[in-house]
Amino acid sequence: MSRSILVIGSGAAGMTAASTARKTDPDARIVLVTEDEHIAYSPCVIPWALEGKMTWDDIVMHDPEYYRQERDIDVRIRTKVSSVDVDKGLLVAGDEEMTFDSVVIATGGNVFIPPIPGRDLEGVHVVRTINDGKSMEKALKNVQEVAIIGAGVIGLEMALSLIELGKRVTVVEMMDQVVPRILDNDLAGDVRRYLEDKGVNFLMGAPIQSVDGDGHVESVTVNGDTVPCGMVIFSTGVRANLELPQQMGLDVGALGGVRVSPSMQAYRKGRLVGNVFVCGDVVQCESAIVAGPTMSQLGSSAVRQGRVAGINAAGGRALHEGVASPWVSVIGDLQVAGTGISSGLASWYGVDVVVGTGKGFSRARYYPGGTPMTVKVIAEVTTGRLIGAQIISGEDATGRINWLSAAIIERVSASDFISRYENAYCPPTSMVRDVAFAAMEDLVSKL
Amino acid sequence: MSRSILVIGSGAAGMTAASTARKTDPDARIVLVTEDEHIAYSPCVIPWALEGKMTWDDIVMHDPEYYRQERDIDVRIRTKVSSVDVDKGLLVAGDEEMTFDSVVIATGGNVFIPPIPGRDLEGVHVVRTINDGKSMEKALKNVQEVAIIGAGVIGLEMALSLIELGKRVTVVEMMDQVVPRILDNDLAGDVRRYLEDKGVNFLMGAPIQSVDGDGHVESVTVNGDTVPCGMVIFSTGVRANLELPQQMGLDVGALGGVRVSPSMQAYRKGRLVGNVFVCGDVVQCESAIVAGPTMSQLGSSAVRQGRVAGINAAGGRALHEGVASPWVSVIGDLQVAGTGISSGLASWYGVDVVVGTGKGFSRARYYPGGTPMTVKVIAEVTTGRLIGAQIISGEDATGRINWLSAAIIERVSASDFISRYENAYCPPTSMVRDVAFAAMEDLVSKL
Repeated sequence: MSRSILVIGSGAAGMTAASTARKTDPDARIVLVTEDEHIAYSPCVIPWALEGKMTWDDIVMHDPEYYRQERDIDVRIRTKVSSVDVDKGLLVAGDEEMTFDSVVIATGGNVFIPPIPGRDLEGVHVVRTINDGKSMEKALKNVQEVAIIGAGVIGLEMALSLIELGKRVTVVEMMDQVVPRILDNDLAGDVRRYLEDKGVNFLMGAPIQSVDGDGHVESVTVNGDTVPCGMVIFSTGVRANLELPQQMGLDVGALGGVRVSPSMQAYRKGRLVGNVFVCGDVVQCESAIVAGPTMSQLGSSAVRQGRVAGINAAGGRALHEGVASPWVSVIGDLQVAGTGISSGLASWYGVDVVVGTGKGFSRARYYPGGTPMTVKVIAEVTTGRLIGAQIISGEDATGRINWLSAAIIERVSASDFISRYENAYCPPTSMVRDVAFAAMEDLVSKL
Repeated sequence: MSRSILVIGSGAAGMTAASTARKTDPDARIVLVTEDEHIAYSPCVIPWALEGKMTWDDIVMHDPEYYRQERDIDVRIRTKVSSVDVDKGLLVAGDEEMTFDSVVIATGGNVFIPPIPGRDLEGVHVVRTINDGKSMEKALKNVQEVAIIGAGVIGLEMALSLIELGKRVTVVEMMDQVVPRILDNDLAGDVRRYLEDKGVNFLMGAPIQSVDGDGHVESVTVNGDTVPCGMVIFSTGVRANLELPQQMGLDVGALGGVRVSPSMQAYRKGRLVGNVFVCGDVVQCESAIVAGPTMSQLGSSAVRQGRVAGINAAGGRALHEGVASPWVSVIGDLQVAGTGISSGLASWYGVDVVVGTGKGFSRARYYPGGTPMTVKVIAEVTTGRLIGAQIISGEDATGRINWLSAAIIERVSASDFISRYENAYCPPTSMVRDVAFAAMEDLVSKL
């Protein structure tokens, strides 16, 4: 009899797991169940869709019918899985019981909204699904002032999109810098100044105290001050959606994600559960930087994890290696990217670091259209190995952060990088010696 | 007494060697001697300067006075070194004798012009120095038809610049594809079609037989056919300029460059010469791909080698590792990049390869402004390790080829790459899973 694989969740992790399972086992019965209405889209694009750079329809790559016809995957939308019995291989989806040989849990995460007064008022939004985007789009027609809570990359991308739409925007961040944890303070300052020049107002270093209004949002209170606004957007980070994993008795790690083995299998009371695979925002995986767990809640990480979960769920064999979690964000004319851990996070881990900064350009200095480029690299003092890197540039940060990410997972030092790594050069796309090398030289000079 | 370091040549290798020597030994006497009039510029930019994207003055980063004042480097332009006596530590530059403790040979290369009739006619040009560029610029005022001999990246960049200037352009290439040796035939076909659409005419698979004219170029003859033209540009590859090395008795390798150790020291009759360092287009260095030598005649390679030569010439210690030689070329709206060895070159080396191709986009599929992106990866059959990669894209090829280059020098396989390497993702700069991974999957499926 053919293998029955059930996938719960239709984000990047779930869709990838289902598709990879199909490639691995052409004969399996594969059902994907999701509470969402839309599948196969990237929530990361919501800020630009809201801005009108493309339609909501554009960003949906495929519908359930496509998966049924092209990949023989039975996709059930708007269907909630209420319980999973691991031992019996049985789950309840909507009002239907389904049996499985293996199950993939890709239930993602939810935006964490702090437990403050007014958080349920009309006019409070999050940036998570197409329907979230559509409801903001509708509401914005009657709103001129927006408060964004949380200055992470999504909050900042949203801020700039709303500025483009002609709104007045205040960003509230409880930490003392934008893009906290993953970007160093100095580069964060550059990003903040850029946004301030674009007209974004910042309230830093104090948490939001309340959302105020009578039925509908009228203001938020921060540090005792009232900020008038007709919309509040929480971009306060994503917490793993643990409802099902907890119901199933799966082990949850210290960082709040489901514990998994490198095969993306779940644990229950410390023992591997053979037929349960977990991937995406809901899991806690291994870091490539420090010995221990990390949360890598990125679309690209979801795809990597979904691939491993899908292969293994279908009887294949794949392992998920530790992650450096490279990321990139486009904030107006800035591309901001990072990988590994920031100086701040290193200090939190108790790792002594030395930091190098290089400043240059994205093209040859004189080549029209080039932009300033700053590259920052971070190494562990004890071993000299690179553990983090960050880039701000007007262009071409993505490939470069992937490159630096490779150096990090290969555990090279800055001096190794200088002697072994090479950059391609053409005046319209690079300096003859890429800015990354200037950062490495600066780092080496400080060791 | 302070160390005396003489550097011969003012290209990327020589200038870098002199500057790095200065950083290594603040007290040294450093003299740089060059036949050129201009120093510290990138000949790679000539096609765009000719097109008028910047002035000739723009591309010169520094003049001799800058080096004298800022780096205490004595730069002698328009000065030919006629002889170097290694044993006595003595050279003759112009009519002056200079003593040295160490000497850096960075005499670069010359464009190879085949020994055919008419190669000395007026109207025959090469793309090597600013003065070459200026003389083309002047001559082009009275020229409508140009023949470019050699369809390497410089020839193609020149072709498109001349099209932009409204000229009629014919490219003559003796091989049956453009960008021979370093680009695979299929991608080369894409590049050629792009240029044909822009109006470039190609004559492939036959060498030039003669340049014809009475005093001045009137046509070229290729395969018996006459191609009328008022200008002929040879971009037929660079040969190491061995005049001085041969006079000094330095060993020359099988590929036609000066043999060097990883410290960039020269050999004489098989023995290291302690005080002679060689770098840039004139050297033959070690490949990171195959056991054996390679010529890495790139500006970025010249900088890497010049750095090592300069440090060692000043009494420091640095080594030059094997090279994958990543390169990128911008041809109109195309960025074409490569690293390691091509399928064709692998076959020449007797290496059996398996090739994977990925097709996708430079941004999320629906994101405005994105372009198609093709990534090709090449692995050795016996070991599975990656030995080459190529990219065609409208944007962001440079960082990505550096990334793939890192994987190659780290000797990872395509399946290693899939399980260990990560990509940053943001809809305006990448697909959620970078096209490189599609290429790797395709390769793995063929193993």
